[in-house]
Amino acid sequence: MTPAKARALFRTTDVATTAGFSAGFAQANLIALDRRYAFDFLLFAQRNPKPCPVLGVLEPGQVSSDLLAGGDIRTDIPAYRVYERGSLIDEPLTASSYWTENTVAFLIGCSFTFEQALLDNGVPLPHIEQGKNVAMYRTDIECEPAGVFSGKMVVSMRPIPASLVSDAVRITSRYPAVHGAPVHVGDPATIGISDLGAPDFGEAIDIPPGTVPVFWACGVTPQSIVMSSKPDLAICHAPGKMLITDARDLVYQVP
Amino acid sequence: MTPAKARALFRTTDVATTAGFSAGFAQANLIALDRRYAFDFLLFAQRNPKPCPVLGVLEPGQVSSDLLAGGDIRTDIPAYRVYERGSLIDEPLTASSYWTENTVAFLIGCSFTFEQALLDNGVPLPHIEQGKNVAMYRTDIECEPAGVFSGKMVVSMRPIPASLVSDAVRITSRYPAVHGAPVHVGDPATIGISDLGAPDFGEAIDIPPGTVPVFWACGVTPQSIVMSSKPDLAICHAPGKMLITDARDLVYQVP
Repeated sequence: MTPAKARALFRTTDVATTAGFSAGFAQANLIALDRRYAFDFLLFAQRNPKPCPVLGVLEPGQVSSDLLAGGDIRTDIPAYRVYERGSLIDEPLTASSYWTENTVAFLIGCSFTFEQALLDNGVPLPHIEQGKNVAMYRTDIECEPAGVFSGKMVVSMRPIPASLVSDAVRITSRYPAVHGAPVHVGDPATIGISDLGAPDFGEAIDIPPGTVPVFWACGVTPQSIVMSSKPDLAICHAPGKMLITDARDLVYQVP
Repeated sequence: MTPAKARALFRTTDVATTAGFSAGFAQANLIALDRRYAFDFLLFAQRNPKPCPVLGVLEPGQVSSDLLAGGDIRTDIPAYRVYERGSLIDEPLTASSYWTENTVAFLIGCSFTFEQALLDNGVPLPHIEQGKNVAMYRTDIECEPAGVFSGKMVVSMRPIPASLVSDAVRITSRYPAVHGAPVHVGDPATIGISDLGAPDFGEAIDIPPGTVPVFWACGVTPQSIVMSSKPDLAICHAPGKMLITDARDLVYQVP
């Protein structure tokens, strides 16, 4: 299914997850904020490109772009989550009624892109084999603050066979637009994670013997940091239900 | 000379150019604007990373950062240029008297970094051999507009021996933070340049036989585009007199 057809489908139809749709095309996280937060948030992203890689920004009044040609950011995601001062108030199928002329939409890179690159290169991903959501953890790594936004980094963890860790680093470092290289390899305690069996988001996974826990900056970070600053309103995608963009995964690969 | 010592020197001393100082450390262009232009400018940079690669941003009230540890952006560049509604009104040795609590400073990557990488890899640079400033041209390539900012890209041209063009592309593509890969290789007319002998900025250079003109996005682009939008005040570095940062050139290299 082309990205345009997938977006048209999601305009009227909810799905459990967009994972697997329009293979080869990048999916994106959405965070939409009032314009008065826009500079601080874009600056936060500039300073924290690993947890917050910006694929595109729709300015006030703009509801489409070349990342979603002919589409509408307010309707083309299967489901949205709306937060008022950091609290979830609604999970609508379209966000049109919450959108104003001052809403700025940030499209943030998603790890689906680098996971596909890992699989294509023969690096196994246990959470996918186990049919689970990736395990995510709050760390004690401080993000670079920007304006009103500050807080700790959230990471995702994938257990990688020891002999493939350097491949996993090499492969993902070529995708800085989708979280890039790992932020940490090995001992979870060093970055403030006390128990791999108790993730803060996602699901605990069985860790195969002979693997090393490898940690990547996670797109949950900006969402968690924005929420803790309690903006009047924030409009996000519902978890696992991403915007399918017209950008091929491969355009985000660097040399 | 360490970057910190160079900045201390330039706090009180002007020089013809910072080229050659603190070899191995990145130099940066400065554009400082009132905060009301800050989101539009940062968004312009996000949409046009080749002409406008952001190394760092100093928010209102911030005059130093880890790019200039212990320094002061208002004084540590040898000389500044101040523009009022797009017209040059002053070329002071310090910018302190023009700085306000609402000034936001953008530090933009500079081609010195990738030129060093080219030279280190054995790619000759005729303008340096000829003791000239690089030749720069206005093109008909439209930048992606953002808010109040829009306009054409300015490029720099380096004639590269035909057998080394692919090396030059490969080497500079590893430095996206300092303009990255060329935007055009070959016929200047295709991008609206009618006469290589008549650059719009810098100096015309003698083009050695057997070379191909290779065009990179140039840091003059954001300056030219900001000026054409006539902000009340813009504070820039004086040409060739850059901020010497504490960041090693090599940290900007991608895999």
